[in-house]
Amino acid sequence: MVVLGLDPGIATVGFGLIDIKDTVPTAIRYGVIKTSAGLPLSARLAAIYEDVNSLIRQFKPDVVTVEELFFNTNLKTGISVAHGRGVLLLAAYENGIPVHEYTPLQVKQSVVGYGRADKKQVMEMVKRLLKLEKIPRPDDAADALAIALCHARAATSLLYKEWSKNECSTT
Amino acid sequence: MVVLGLDPGIATVGFGLIDIKDTVPTAIRYGVIKTSAGLPLSARLAAIYEDVNSLIRQFKPDVVTVEELFFNTNLKTGISVAHGRGVLLLAAYENGIPVHEYTPLQVKQSVVGYGRADKKQVMEMVKRLLKLEKIPRPDDAADALAIALCHARAATSLLYKEWSKNECSTT
Repeated sequence: MVVLGLDPGIATVGFGLIDIKDTVPTAIRYGVIKTSAGLPLSARLAAIYEDVNSLIRQFKPDVVTVEELFFNTNLKTGISVAHGRGVLLLAAYENGIPVHEYTPLQVKQSVVGYGRADKKQVMEMVKRLLKLEKIPRPDDAADALAIALCHARAATSLLYKEWSKNECSTT
Repeated sequence: MVVLGLDPGIATVGFGLIDIKDTVPTAIRYGVIKTSAGLPLSARLAAIYEDVNSLIRQFKPDVVTVEELFFNTNLKTGISVAHGRGVLLLAAYENGIPVHEYTPLQVKQSVVGYGRADKKQVMEMVKRLLKLEKIPRPDDAADALAIALCHARAATSLLYKEWSKNECSTT
């Protein structure tokens, strides 16, 4: 199962593609889509939409996962990110790919085993679970991988058990 | 010049198409795109995107105008509307149509001549300026026409003068 995790934004959209085989998650590709602040919002949205469409066509994910928006963020940031999130959801739908949404709490709970884990702990677990040499950079890419891993865990109970063994407590 | 005004949302998107000939604005078509609350957000966004694309292809507007989002709205509403606004801007861009954005203050100032005009005054002026028999319904359609009229006024100084004569004070 190929999972595309997306960390929405306007200036930067993080993406993380993982493959799950025999309950083992592997990173296929991760990185960020960047748009220039000098462009009008509509052009930035179109750049995001087109790049995500390209990723979907190239890697054919079975599912797209996106983090739910914080409602404790500030309104201006939330509104800006939501514009970008809208075109991500659209791209998934238009390609016939189901979308799953998780709260930041669910992502932390799933990846670290603790809903109040800090960013550093999440990054470290992403590295360990995907057996990467270094913590993925930039942060938005690591966040996107974390969201993909969260779904992988929700979707595969066996994987869940593996992770439990792997010190990712699951109470 | 054909102007497509859009009043963004998720459940209801208002649209208003006007044509400006010899400084006289005429309503071509107005109404709302509705999406069902039972659908996932991605499907609702796709329905909005597709319907706006159809309107654009059918009526070939020269410009799309969208109201800027209130930043004094509540966060949940703002975020929801911004998802929809994202796909409207995308549709305009993908069709090569320039987008103009106006604040609610600019729309009221332009259509009624008074930035603190109430909703009823805006509706009444939309009816008068477009020589309609009744105030357009639902409200979202009338709002979309108001946004289109705001742009028409900004774009045509002659029309501006006409409106001044028409008791739409322009101080």
